[in-house]
Amino acid sequence: MIRHLNVDIPGQGLHEITDRLEAMVREAGVKEGLCTLFVQHTSASLLIDAGQDGPSQNDPLYTHQNEGPDDMPGHIKSALTATHLCIPVVGGRLALGTWQGVHLWEHRHQRGARRIVVHLGV
Amino acid sequence: MIRHLNVDIPGQGLHEITDRLEAMVREAGVKEGLCTLFVQHTSASLLIDAGQDGPSQNDPLYTHQNEGPDDMPGHIKSALTATHLCIPVVGGRLALGTWQGVHLWEHRHQRGARRIVVHLGV
Amino acid sequence: MIRHLNVDIPGQGLHEITDRLEAMVREAGVKEGLCTLFVQHTSASLLIDAGQDGPSQNDPLYTHQNEGPDDMPGHIKSALTATHLCIPVVGGRLALGTWQGVHLWEHRHQRGARRIVVHLGV
Repeated sequence: MIRHLNVDIPGQGLHEITDRLEAMVREAGVKEGLCTLFVQHTSASLLIDAGQDGPSQNDPLYTHQNEGPDDMPGHIKSALTATHLCIPVVGGRLALGTWQGVHLWEHRHQRGARRIVVHLGV
Repeated sequence: MIRHLNVDIPGQGLHEITDRLEAMVREAGVKEGLCTLFVQHTSASLLIDAGQDGPSQNDPLYTHQNEGPDDMPGHIKSALTATHLCIPVVGGRLALGTWQGVHLWEHRHQRGARRIVVHLGV
Repeated sequence: MIRHLNVDIPGQGLHEITDRLEAMVREAGVKEGLCTLFVQHTSASLLIDAGQDGPSQNDPLYTHQNEGPDDMPGHIKSALTATHLCIPVVGGRLALGTWQGVHLWEHRHQRGARRIVVHLGV
């Protein structure tokens, strides 16, 4: 089963999509299976990260362009970060750990919309 | 089909789980399909690496905290390393190359238990 | 459904395999599903990258061994780059974005053949 998730992003940084993804799985009625996300852009990545004690949108890693890994050219980034993620579905829910959340990591500064294709398999 | 793999780890470093995973595939009776692993923690990663001529647990990359990539903050690590892996199953076995093994890469020093959710699909 | 893709590579660098993969999906008759690639080698990776305005084979990142990330030891590379990729199939085609292409990233200098196992699931 294919679903589409469009994410409006205000600019560079991490954007949590866990709740929208959970709602999608619930509405699709998948009880046990595998949820795969694929982002159709080369300047954005997907990552699983700590939701509560993890990086915030104020973390320099995710918000500044001229220091740390954010200074990497885009093609290094796309070689080292993830275009897709797979998360098992158990009991009708994403089988995330207590501290895990699903994020879109936008590498560009400008506002925009990002398309994620979601595959729900059994 | 969902399975759970609990790994007791003595501390930081690589812990090979290939044999346990192979046994799980065999017991599940999957002949052809896809095996997906998902680790439910943000301070551990999954990786495919060389089993025999690859890094050992004495490799500084995997055992020391204050040099090299192990010195990376945890949230950079979780952005650049893998929370999940997919491995095809062919002829009832994981379709790994000759030199490939499946490892849990623990980033913390203390002993502990790690939970991996395994999805076996056709 | 399992397929095999053998790639002859002239040496280090990026080798686009999008067309061959699209042909494989078309011939298999999969209309909607998930295409998973797994490379059976520890000295090659898979990545989704920009096809047209992205890195070329003349990009130092992908062609030189003694500068930049190409200077990383192989086991760091295999910890940070991808052994597998998952791409949804929609309308009988890989659901790649406009600028995305699928590449094998060879880390060694010598000519050789690389084996990729492809799983096509629904």
